[in-house]
Formats: sequence, structure tokens, C-alpha cells
Amino acid sequence: MSQLIGNAIFGQSGGPTSVINASAAGVFIEALKHSDCIPKVFGAAHGIKGILEETFYDMGQEDPHELELMKTTPSSALGSVRYKLADASADDTDYKRLLEVFKKYNIRYFFYNGGNDSMDTCNKISKFMQKSGYECRVMGVPKTIDNDLYGTDHCPGFSSAAKYLATSTMEVYLDARVYDTGMITVLECMGRNAGWLTAATALAAYKGQGPDLIYLPEVPFDLDKMVEDVKRIYAQTGKVIIAVSEGVKTKEGKYIPELVGEVATDAFGHKQMGGTASVLANYLKEKTGSKVRGIEFSLLQRCAAHLGSKSDVEEAYGSGAEAVKKALDGCTDYMIGIKRVSSQPYQTEYVLVPLSDVANTEKTVPREWINEEGNFVNDKFIEYALPLIAEDSVLPKEDGLPRFCHLKKVQATV
Amino acid sequence: MSQLIGNAIFGQSGGPTSVINASAAGVFIEALKHSDCIPKVFGAAHGIKGILEETFYDMGQEDPHELELMKTTPSSALGSVRYKLADASADDTDYKRLLEVFKKYNIRYFFYNGGNDSMDTCNKISKFMQKSGYECRVMGVPKTIDNDLYGTDHCPGFSSAAKYLATSTMEVYLDARVYDTGMITVLECMGRNAGWLTAATALAAYKGQGPDLIYLPEVPFDLDKMVEDVKRIYAQTGKVIIAVSEGVKTKEGKYIPELVGEVATDAFGHKQMGGTASVLANYLKEKTGSKVRGIEFSLLQRCAAHLGSKSDVEEAYGSGAEAVKKALDGCTDYMIGIKRVSSQPYQTEYVLVPLSDVANTEKTVPREWINEEGNFVNDKFIEYALPLIAEDSVLPKEDGLPRFCHLKKVQATV
Repeated sequence: MSQLIGNAIFGQSGGPTSVINASAAGVFIEALKHSDCIPKVFGAAHGIKGILEETFYDMGQEDPHELELMKTTPSSALGSVRYKLADASADDTDYKRLLEVFKKYNIRYFFYNGGNDSMDTCNKISKFMQKSGYECRVMGVPKTIDNDLYGTDHCPGFSSAAKYLATSTMEVYLDARVYDTGMITVLECMGRNAGWLTAATALAAYKGQGPDLIYLPEVPFDLDKMVEDVKRIYAQTGKVIIAVSEGVKTKEGKYIPELVGEVATDAFGHKQMGGTASVLANYLKEKTGSKVRGIEFSLLQRCAAHLGSKSDVEEAYGSGAEAVKKALDGCTDYMIGIKRVSSQPYQTEYVLVPLSDVANTEKTVPREWINEEGNFVNDKFIEYALPLIAEDSVLPKEDGLPRFCHLKKVQATV
Repeated sequence: MSQLIGNAIFGQSGGPTSVINASAAGVFIEALKHSDCIPKVFGAAHGIKGILEETFYDMGQEDPHELELMKTTPSSALGSVRYKLADASADDTDYKRLLEVFKKYNIRYFFYNGGNDSMDTCNKISKFMQKSGYECRVMGVPKTIDNDLYGTDHCPGFSSAAKYLATSTMEVYLDARVYDTGMITVLECMGRNAGWLTAATALAAYKGQGPDLIYLPEVPFDLDKMVEDVKRIYAQTGKVIIAVSEGVKTKEGKYIPELVGEVATDAFGHKQMGGTASVLANYLKEKTGSKVRGIEFSLLQRCAAHLGSKSDVEEAYGSGAEAVKKALDGCTDYMIGIKRVSSQPYQTEYVLVPLSDVANTEKTVPREWINEEGNFVNDKFIEYALPLIAEDSVLPKEDGLPRFCHLKKVQATV
């Protein structure tokens, strides 16, 4: 072990998940165990922005019980950010400022938790620090419900969102066939370029209580073909459930709201860019004459810690803790990845993925996991996803409601 | 006990809930214990409609384990219906047909599960059977997430929906304050005339993680005043969460989509009657310039058995079973009501409420439980609602997903 003594900072970046705080807990709790090497552990407010502005918290001041509760607290307890660093070769202002802050607070360990963009940020900072000759170990911790990170079997955040989507879809399936009248239900899931979340509704279908049609952004969307699919199933059963990704688009690159809702205007004459579900629901109502309901899972799908996956919480925590251990071991410039050793029984191990490989690379649902028609996923997806949602995370409660963490957020000092 | 020997039929009516099948299980399991008095127990497909059409199932043919699973299966396992019986004095066609079916199948016990309209149906049938001199015991079993039934402290279905809404609101609260930019979130809850469900989001506020503003249909809605409220809070904190009932309307009787979205048209020139949340979100975006997100809890709030309240499941089952016991005891023409004996500890008992008192009477949130300004509820509501969500129902699972009941639905024969 090549020993490096200095403080650590951790930041959260991009859209939050049910378990992003579990990764934070993993970093903090592990780092706080090593006060010989890491005297102080900081948590940045709103990711990189908090570091640039010197707004970060001394995590050693927090109640250890509250740090534990972070494991099951959704959203981003420190605050997140969508901040794209310029290329250092074009504009190194931010980088110089970061270096200044790192020096001022003797920060020698930098952990960043996020998706593609955040790993890009992490990579750029790592490279700049190396070039500047400032010794600092930089490690990425994966996070995204979108599940589109390269180099990892799956991303912390995805399994819980998948569990929520599959469960809620089963419940809606039952609700949508209560009356003996026709009914079409459109479920809108997140995912601009990758269809992992939408595909997760197929787990409900695997249980016999799921969608009839699944449309992912991986396959060019054909509106007429979809109407045809819907009409065919409707004629057979009178009930159709469609799961659609917010990101599906035609081969010309048009999103659904652009295709069918673009001229909708409100009372003020402003364009009403409705969500995919409501726009598609109105369109199908028009085309089929059936009762149609659009349901957007919206933020609910990414913050539903009450329905978290146990392995997800453990892996989110574990990858945070692993990042600290590896950094202390001398590693830098890597993201922690999850490698699946076995699906039955479900076993994983952590691996190191070079940050430069991860940055800005997107992993989508393989075409061969999608049926030929492009309107459902096949067994390969089920085999992949089912082990991820097998067990429930246990959420501490008080008065029958979640007991989420309360942080003191004591401003760090030099 | 005045003994009456004959078969029993049970039907589900109106919008489903998380626990409507628990009431069905209560009726079926209890009735099946009394084969001396009740040789056959039928379940009507789609409520009264199934009886008129002689489509009903022999529940004695079901696997007892599946009947048990009905307790935690949301939605309406037999199928529900919205069917309004005419007044018998105006048109007795349906009533005569019901009598014919009752005679044909020797039905002497009629149990009907639903809300206001369904209790009206139940009452009318009861009165007609009495007038016809056909001995039949008629009992109503309460059900509605809307919680607006007269003569009962609360309605089976409400507590689970309240637990779901409060929990999800807490999660959205955290998600909606992730970035250091302004954000307004509009949460739309069900309830056309009664604000109980929307008020349930105040339970999240009680935990410090809930809405800033709550608008119920019980108070005339003032759009300008709401914008003023929102702007004031936004100026202070940059984050506003509004919970609004789909049923709020101005003193002139206009609903929000009518107020602000009525001229919205889609690509086909058709009116887009958006949901309250999305319409209000667009309006507030216009008025404040802030980022605004509308979230409609939609069907999710009434079918989320995965987040059921233990007491709700027990009371739904219990009121079904109680209806059978009381009918066997000779009672008829009543709905089972829930009387709260104590809030701490939470204790209830079943009471008999005359059907004619319940039919078409609506119980709304008392004005004195709402603050003077009409934009929040006070402690009286919290004291009422908190005990209802105290414990979690345990949902049987398989592969990490709910294991809902599977009924054989064997058509009944004479």
C-alpha cells in the first residue's frame, strides 16, 4: 500500500436515485474508519459546484445513526448538480479553482458518484490533477436508474427502480381490468436513450400481470405500427397495456410529443409539450375510440425507497466503500464496476473500470434482447433483471412512515 | 338467531381499492364456514351486472390459499361495475330480474361492497326484496379510497391509499430539492368532492417532508390566491410543493382544467382536457417562470397494495366477515361501519348503520380541520389519520414481486 495522507471529499451528481445516498454512506462510513490516512471526510453540496464554491460539510460531525439511515434515504442528501466541465485544454478556469480548493483543504481523495456525464467530470478532474502533479486519488462510484453505464453489469439505482416499476405495473394491470369495458393504459417510464427501465415492466409480464407491448428507444419507433399492434390486441381482449420509454423516437429522430402533440396550445397560446403518456393516450383514444389512460411514473420511479431492492442498497453502499478501500490501496482513475459472478445464486464482485473507458459511453439494451418486431423484450432480459429485484430492502419507519436521515450539514473548515 | 337457509352472493362495485378483495375474502371465508345455513357462496362478476346476467362464480371451488391471498391483492378480483339502478317506482325491470335470479339460485344473503352509489344500490334492492315479500338479508360492506361514506369513522381502502400518498409525497419532497435551482411540484390526488386523500399528504408534512400547500374540494378554489401563496413560499425557499385534489373548483363551480386549460387543442383540433396537475404546472410555469413539475398519482394511489396499511387490510376483511355474521344473526338492511373506540392505542369496533342513512350521503373533510386560509389541514386531521397508517401490511412475494391471488372463477350453477 502506498500511503497517502490527506482529506477526502465526496460529491453526488446527476439525477438522484433511491440508493445514491447509500453510496454516500458507503464512502463516508468507510472513510471515517481510516482517520490515520484520511483525517477529514467532506461531503460536497451539489457535487462539483459545492467544491468550486467551497460549500461542503464535515461528515465526521454527523451522528453515525443518521449516516446509517442514509442507506435507505432516497434522493440526494447532499444535493446534486448537472454541471458540465469544459475541456481543460479549452478553458481550465474551473480546474484551477478545484486545484486551489483541493490544496487549501488538503484534499487527496476525490470520490464522485454519478452516471456517464459525472464519470466524464471525474475523468477530466483526474487527468488534470495528474498533469498538475498534485497527488490525488480519484475514484468514480456508479449511479443511475438509467442503467446505461459502461463496464458494470448494472448500475446502483436501477434494481430498485426496476422493482418499483415491475410491482406498480402489476398493480396497475389488475386495476386496468376491473370493468367489463375496453381499456388501454399507457405507462411512461424514464430513459432518454436506454430502455432498461421500460424493459423492467416485462418482469410484471413474466408474472402474467404486465404490459402487452413494450417500446424502447433502442428500436426506431413507428407510430402506425404501434396503433396496429394496439388494435390487434384490443380486438382480442379489450384490454391493452403499453409500456413506453419517454425517449422513443422515429427513425427521423422525432419524439412522440413532437409527432402527435406539437400544435397543442394552452389558454395563453403556448405550446403544451405534454408527456409521452398523455400525448399517446389522447392519440390512441382518437384512433381506437377506446377509453385510454396515460400514467407517467415520473419522479416516483427514481425515489421509491419504500420499494427498494436489497441487493441494490447493498451494492450502492458496497461500491462506495470499495472506492475508498481501493483508493487507500493506491488506486486512482477508476470507477467501481459490478461484475456478476452468478445469477443463481445471485453473486457479484467489484471490479475496477478505467474512468476514461466509462466517460460518456452509453450502454443500451442489446438488440438481441428485444424481439424481432421491436415491441417486447425476450427471456434474456428477464434472466438478467429478475435476480436484481429478488429481495426487499427494509426501510426503517416511524409512525408507519419512512424515517429518512437528517444531516446536520456542518460547514467544513480548513 | 332466526335461521334462514339459502345461498349467498357477494358483489364488488365502484372504483377498486387496495383492499376491496380483502373484504371479499372476509365475506367468502366467513360464509364458507357456515355451510349449514349457506350451502353455496357465489361471487358476482362485475357486481350487480353479473347477477342480472347470471354470471357468477362458485367460491367454494376456489383454493383456500388463493382466497387468503385475496386479502393482499389490490383491485377487484371479481370485476367491478358502475351501474345505477333506476328507482323501482319508475322502472322495476332490473329489480324483477334480480328477484328472478335470487329465486332461481335460492339466494337469501346479498352482500354488496362499495361506496355511496353502491350503498344506494344495496338499499334499493333491500327495499324491493322486502316489498316483494322475498326473505333475503342484505348487508353493505363499506369501501372507498375517497373515505366519504357516512356512518363510519373511515372507509376500508382509505388508510392504504393515505399511507401510499404520504410515503410517496415524502419521497418526492426529497427528490424535488436535489438541485440548487427553484422548483415547484404539483401533486394531484384523487377525490372529486371530498379531500381526504389530498389531505393525507399532510402526514408527510407532519414528518417535515411534505407539501407547503394543500387544496381540497371542501373550500372554494381561488386561482389567484394560489398563485400568490406559491410566489410567497417560492420567494422564501425556492421550493414549493402543492398537493391538490382533482376535484377542487371555484365558487362558480369551475374545475382547474376548465379554468386554465380549456382551449388547449391537439394536432387534430380536439380539446386536450389535461389532468389538474399538468394543467396547473403549465400555468404556474407561466406565472412564476420557475421550473414546475406536475405529478398525477393516478391509479397508483388506489392499487398500491405493496404499501398497504395493516389495519386497513384487517378492517376490510373484518367488515366483510362481520357482514356475514350479522346477516346470520338475522340483521338485514345495514352497512357495516367502523367506530373508533380509541386512537391511542388504536382500537375500533364494528357497528350497524342503516343502509337508508348511508345511501348517497357524502362525508367531506370538516371545515374546522382545514386552516382558515383554506390552504392546509390542521392537527385535527393528523390526529385522525396518523393511527390509520401506523403499521404495514405484509404482502406475500415470489421472486421479489407480489404474489397476487389467482381465482379459478368456476361458473355457478343452480
